[in-house]
Amino acid sequence: MKSIAKQLLVVIALAAPFAASAQVKPEEAIRARQSIMRVVALNFGPLGKMGSGDVTLNKAVFQTNAARVEAIWAMNPAQYFAPGTDKPVAGAKIATFSDARPEIWSQPEKFKAAAERATQQVGLLAQAARTGDETAMRSAAGELGKSCKACHDEFRAK
Amino acid sequence: MKSIAKQLLVVIALAAPFAASAQVKPEEAIRARQSIMRVVALNFGPLGKMGSGDVTLNKAVFQTNAARVEAIWAMNPAQYFAPGTDKPVAGAKIATFSDARPEIWSQPEKFKAAAERATQQVGLLAQAARTGDETAMRSAAGELGKSCKACHDEFRAK
Repeated sequence: MKSIAKQLLVVIALAAPFAASAQVKPEEAIRARQSIMRVVALNFGPLGKMGSGDVTLNKAVFQTNAARVEAIWAMNPAQYFAPGTDKPVAGAKIATFSDARPEIWSQPEKFKAAAERATQQVGLLAQAARTGDETAMRSAAGELGKSCKACHDEFRAK
Repeated sequence: MKSIAKQLLVVIALAAPFAASAQVKPEEAIRARQSIMRVVALNFGPLGKMGSGDVTLNKAVFQTNAARVEAIWAMNPAQYFAPGTDKPVAGAKIATFSDARPEIWSQPEKFKAAAERATQQVGLLAQAARTGDETAMRSAAGELGKSCKACHDEFRAK
């Protein structure tokens, strides 16, 4: 009995990053996470290029977009990867695909850790942007880009 | 010659709200606008209910979400309704539907005016949230809700 209780606690603890699971339909959860990630990408895209030196750093754009990334990331997109949202809902108009890999649900602690690393880098990006130090801004953009890529490589279908 | 030049200027002026048109593929534009609108809705949804009194006003949530709506709305979703993005791209994985009505392109000035009214109401919402005056916050949420609905009624398929 004790061991079953312990197992249940583990399940609950692992489920914690998926707090929204009970509140939204699977297709709405998939749409929410895809929309949040897309809006983050629209904002971070140019900053990644500024970080790598592909485009000239524009301080005003960098500061606006970094603040936006921080605000949107605080919506906690990881919560929308609830169990049961691994596949699009047949016949749904929205969320007709999902690139989420099964490792999100089979290795939830690893997924959670990857999301937390991204959260940390997002905070450092926003902080660097507030200082206005261009070297720090480029560096933080590079680090967040690595964090995005590492998580996508592991948890998003190619 | 003069009249053709004048016509061209009108076309350019009307195209101005669609500034991103040359930069992104139609399916990317549709995905961008749908994602931005969805993230706005995820944030404004609870505030609309607080405005109507359906749920108790939570000042911290209201202030966080109102600031987020303002930041995201500044991405100017109207720019992604470029000509040629009225229908989803056949065979595309993303943006498999569009609820955009043809009036967006046949009545661009009207659409632009509706977007500008929403921008104004978004600004007033964020301003009310910053004052922390709950009556003003509820009222601003109600007004923005009306603005959303009016534009959706006219320019979004049911």
